Amino acid sequence: MEKIKVAVLGATGTVGQKFIALLENHPFFETHELVASPRSAGKPYAQACDWKQDSFIPAALKDRIVKSTEEKLESIILFSGMDASVAGEIEEKYAHAGHFIISNSKNHRMNPCVPLIIPEINADHFEVIRHQPYKGGIVTNSNCSTMFMAMVLAPLHREFGIKTVQVTTMQAISGAGYPGVSSIDILGNVIPFIGGEEEKMQVESQKILGRVEDGIIVSADYLVSAQCNRVPVFDGHTETLSLTFEKKPTVEGVKKALTSFRGIPQEKKLPSAPEQPILVFDEDNRPQPARDIWKNRGMSTCVGRIREDNVADIKMVILGHNTVRGAAGAAILNAETLVSLGYLNAAG
Amino acid sequence: MEKIKVAVLGATGTVGQKFIALLENHPFFETHELVASPRSAGKPYAQACDWKQDSFIPAALKDRIVKSTEEKLESIILFSGMDASVAGEIEEKYAHAGHFIISNSKNHRMNPCVPLIIPEINADHFEVIRHQPYKGGIVTNSNCSTMFMAMVLAPLHREFGIKTVQVTTMQAISGAGYPGVSSIDILGNVIPFIGGEEEKMQVESQKILGRVEDGIIVSADYLVSAQCNRVPVFDGHTETLSLTFEKKPTVEGVKKALTSFRGIPQEKKLPSAPEQPILVFDEDNRPQPARDIWKNRGMSTCVGRIREDNVADIKMVILGHNTVRGAAGAAILNAETLVSLGYLNAAG
Amino acid sequence: MEKIKVAVLGATGTVGQKFIALLENHPFFETHELVASPRSAGKPYAQACDWKQDSFIPAALKDRIVKSTEEKLESIILFSGMDASVAGEIEEKYAHAGHFIISNSKNHRMNPCVPLIIPEINADHFEVIRHQPYKGGIVTNSNCSTMFMAMVLAPLHREFGIKTVQVTTMQAISGAGYPGVSSIDILGNVIPFIGGEEEKMQVESQKILGRVEDGIIVSADYLVSAQCNRVPVFDGHTETLSLTFEKKPTVEGVKKALTSFRGIPQEKKLPSAPEQPILVFDEDNRPQPARDIWKNRGMSTCVGRIREDNVADIKMVILGHNTVRGAAGAAILNAETLVSLGYLNAAG
Amino acid sequence: MEKIKVAVLGATGTVGQKFIALLENHPFFETHELVASPRSAGKPYAQACDWKQDSFIPAALKDRIVKSTEEKLESIILFSGMDASVAGEIEEKYAHAGHFIISNSKNHRMNPCVPLIIPEINADHFEVIRHQPYKGGIVTNSNCSTMFMAMVLAPLHREFGIKTVQVTTMQAISGAGYPGVSSIDILGNVIPFIGGEEEKMQVESQKILGRVEDGIIVSADYLVSAQCNRVPVFDGHTETLSLTFEKKPTVEGVKKALTSFRGIPQEKKLPSAPEQPILVFDEDNRPQPARDIWKNRGMSTCVGRIREDNVADIKMVILGHNTVRGAAGAAILNAETLVSLGYLNAAG
Repeated sequence: MEKIKVAVLGATGTVGQKFIALLENHPFFETHELVASPRSAGKPYAQACDWKQDSFIPAALKDRIVKSTEEKLESIILFSGMDASVAGEIEEKYAHAGHFIISNSKNHRMNPCVPLIIPEINADHFEVIRHQPYKGGIVTNSNCSTMFMAMVLAPLHREFGIKTVQVTTMQAISGAGYPGVSSIDILGNVIPFIGGEEEKMQVESQKILGRVEDGIIVSADYLVSAQCNRVPVFDGHTETLSLTFEKKPTVEGVKKALTSFRGIPQEKKLPSAPEQPILVFDEDNRPQPARDIWKNRGMSTCVGRIREDNVADIKMVILGHNTVRGAAGAAILNAETLVSLGYLNAAG
Repeated sequence: MEKIKVAVLGATGTVGQKFIALLENHPFFETHELVASPRSAGKPYAQACDWKQDSFIPAALKDRIVKSTEEKLESIILFSGMDASVAGEIEEKYAHAGHFIISNSKNHRMNPCVPLIIPEINADHFEVIRHQPYKGGIVTNSNCSTMFMAMVLAPLHREFGIKTVQVTTMQAISGAGYPGVSSIDILGNVIPFIGGEEEKMQVESQKILGRVEDGIIVSADYLVSAQCNRVPVFDGHTETLSLTFEKKPTVEGVKKALTSFRGIPQEKKLPSAPEQPILVFDEDNRPQPARDIWKNRGMSTCVGRIREDNVADIKMVILGHNTVRGAAGAAILNAETLVSLGYLNAAG
Repeated sequence: MEKIKVAVLGATGTVGQKFIALLENHPFFETHELVASPRSAGKPYAQACDWKQDSFIPAALKDRIVKSTEEKLESIILFSGMDASVAGEIEEKYAHAGHFIISNSKNHRMNPCVPLIIPEINADHFEVIRHQPYKGGIVTNSNCSTMFMAMVLAPLHREFGIKTVQVTTMQAISGAGYPGVSSIDILGNVIPFIGGEEEKMQVESQKILGRVEDGIIVSADYLVSAQCNRVPVFDGHTETLSLTFEKKPTVEGVKKALTSFRGIPQEKKLPSAPEQPILVFDEDNRPQPARDIWKNRGMSTCVGRIREDNVADIKMVILGHNTVRGAAGAAILNAETLVSLGYLNAAG
Repeated sequence: MEKIKVAVLGATGTVGQKFIALLENHPFFETHELVASPRSAGKPYAQACDWKQDSFIPAALKDRIVKSTEEKLESIILFSGMDASVAGEIEEKYAHAGHFIISNSKNHRMNPCVPLIIPEINADHFEVIRHQPYKGGIVTNSNCSTMFMAMVLAPLHREFGIKTVQVTTMQAISGAGYPGVSSIDILGNVIPFIGGEEEKMQVESQKILGRVEDGIIVSADYLVSAQCNRVPVFDGHTETLSLTFEKKPTVEGVKKALTSFRGIPQEKKLPSAPEQPILVFDEDNRPQPARDIWKNRGMSTCVGRIREDNVADIKMVILGHNTVRGAAGAAILNAETLVSLGYLNAAG
């Protein structure tokens, strides 16, 4: 199979760099175009970018000339890691021009015609693309903190019916991009506030767990209350959850539902799919960001301390790699699923 | 007034050092005896101790010979920062011998004849000392995480009736003593477990907010569910709370109840009493441990982000200095209150 | 004695805030005017400023209206914590207008008519103010890393003659101001570069240890080679030194010279003067920023591990509080010395 | 080629775990025996060990029963990550029994009959094994901080003749093992002392750069002065170097010598050999531990800021991954070289 040419929008930013690192040697995709703001455009990528990944810049891309978001593009799939302040319009422009935008930005997430995809959960939502007013299409993934929570809620909601979710997050600094959080504000500190984050967590998972009706997505109707904190951790968002259910499950029932959860990406053995979407830990002090975020190449959601809650029904701790499964890796898995379900051919 | 001679039990440990630092130049108390395990006994304090406080060892105590917990003591008040593995028996021994033990250890906290004191809340509980089987008495303060939570719950319980409390903590490393938490385990990490901590948080505040009946303390009957985490912060425990009430208050009602809260220590203007036991912040990103724990010399509980909760009634963030108001400072304020209420004379 | 009215230039910035915190209740000075860029001017200080100090904003200053650097000022002494990009001109303007500028900015430091003062070392350099082309005068203190090094070099140079200095620094993030260093760049990391810092360290101490000739300052002529690093420490610059001398001293000789060092501020018992400018530690693992920067209220330079060097003559570790003795505290001590030596009256 | 069976001594410790992680899927070696103290022996590995690596325990080893260091072993090559308190005798015992010990412990490093190997530099030193009093043999690698320094000194010494080396280290916490450094001591702190480290750095590199004479190793004779510090970094030792030479090189000459350096492992394309042993960075703020230690899978030494030194001749910053190239990875590369040079067959 010939590789599909893809572009990275916002290629010099934090999410863009992660896209490029994760797409190196990808079996489906070849990074063909690097796209950034007009300010960076025209320069070789290595000059335009302050590369901060562990790995080297892929050799083939070091001298690739960065294109501007004002230019026409050749790639079919565009991975978007652009800042929300500009992503909305640019993504729409390229979708109208026939590209498939796999976006990590928040702008179109809550639009009922735009699927908000975690492919293990709601790959059937891709079908609303057909109702979008674009020649191509826009697909989004959720906010990083929502991602891990939704992944855990999905199998539990199916089996036991979620009523309420109370979540407190301890989020890594990499979630704020670069320069993001000043070291003066976070070294040895906790910041009990992340602008807009609680609002996202309180609505996005319900859309992900919702259903398609008449070409749009209707959200599920449980309640989420979120308290979001920044902690001095580099990568990895940790969250404590307290849940109530329609049918209260046992601890063992919860573990079984989470451990056995699988979806389309596992079924189709997609390249970025973790063998197990959810890893359940039995040790009493796990999962931990510094130990567990790279399990299954950063693509699994880790869960531990599942136990009875004497106020709600069940409580637990969850963890995920916010810049892999919570951002660039999620988008790439979305694209793999889109391709494997034949949406690209259908569009062509 | 002549100063009251006091001893510090566990004088070489983390809590013991904090007692010594906070008692320097105290208007009521003079640190007369430094007491530690037989292993440290007989040495000058500066040699016996790996001093880790910001300040110097008080000049008068550098060469003070450390006494053993097997010796008789001359001081009336003994501040105990001993490890829980030995504190129980030693404290009882000295209480039988006529000393007043002001203990920071957990051993006797839940004994219904031992007052678990936060003097702003329950100074009336001191009276159960008279029913203790000792010539002297034992007074305890709560676990550090409980302290700040109980301080906030007290005025709200009085006015609105607490039904349920859900709390997630982000606790500082100093709470684990020395050597405590390995840097390998906590640098850039979150540990979602602190042994025994959730259990303490789920019972201690109800005793503090309880009432004296027939010489023993009967706990209040709301429910607490705790999820405790260690984060890479040096000093200062941050906690997110979700509360439900008998009578749901407004956000303004909560702020007013917290801001106006005062108790015996404020009334009597005790030396360690903060002018305001509870500081309410209006900024959306406060309180923060690195900024706010030293407000009012580490003796206030800081509260912020008081807002409606769409699952419970009200949510908020609280913070306190775990080794000051949460440990040594709390014990010293307990002793000041005990003295000011005349219990020492009564005993004599 | 009536207090001298002072202004703080750059009052909303990091150094400005530190000036305000340290000047609270100062016996000589009263903070009368808060001065900042036109953008902040006209607002009450508490609104204009994102206050990040441990203490509260001094009550008297919360509502003080911030003045603009374009306005005339009433205070005689102006403490300047302005950014170097604007400090040069504004300081000159106010010096021409008759004010005494006590500046922490780098702009005028290497001007041979401007004294670069560490008052324990070179209070006699103040006299070059008389040769300045201003009605008032400009006094500077050194770069923070240089401060601690110069303090240690001074007594050694006098007694043994410094030939070469090799210094590697491990500098705190607070030295970079706010927002300064991104947490992405420094959490769990070392940055082996600080723009312009090595150059400053290689020339400033020689001026401080220089002599006045014909109304200007002539630098001492030893050589300094610096390697500057940023480390994830909040406050406190640690430096390793390797020294060669004209007359090689013994380790004991070095300790004695450092321990016994005193200057004008100690002689005159100035309010901000540390009793001992240099604290020598005998423990093999001290000084440490998290333990020792607050010794003597942040105004001492701490020295440890003084030992023979098998390549140079003597090596050691030094440490100081970069935002107190290394910045605002240094400037305040400069002002106290200036006042106590009668320069203000002479000027009037 | 059939894989060679190897054992890991000290398999439950930090270095032992790293051996196991790095040996997973190794083309030459198969981890056959896991050996630990009698306390751990007899248990399945997953139970005996508190696994702290990013990856999972290799599936084949989870249930492998841990052997005791008192047992006979079947493997030819034994990788030793034992604590120095016991390594000396146990390694000798197994060497007498015919095993090849590839040791990361310090016990035998400075024995003139034991090669202290960095195979890019001194693979010819392996020959002294033949003069060892063992049926098998003992091979060591250097202390982690020495490793990166020696790697950089080797090509420079050959070409320009090193006279003196002054080095200040900023070392990661992982170098101290587990539990190692208390978080109380290092969070937001610098500890300017690491027991025994400076002594090792001052003698080990001279042995590595020495020559074989009459069956023993004679050290090179330049001087090293070291100042070692612990900083709050997880992995990666950063070091500043100041060098003087017999023939002072240009900056370009140094870069060329470092960049072009290759050795036996590169020539033989050994599995763990980095393509370039030394990576030279041109950016002024690199290398950095959080960005660069994983370049070339943690096996390269990174160098930056090569520049003239106005006291010595040349200064620079170097960096390496202390638990990979500085410990387990170094030992594995030593074993690969040993095998590829035919020493195992010769021994058989």
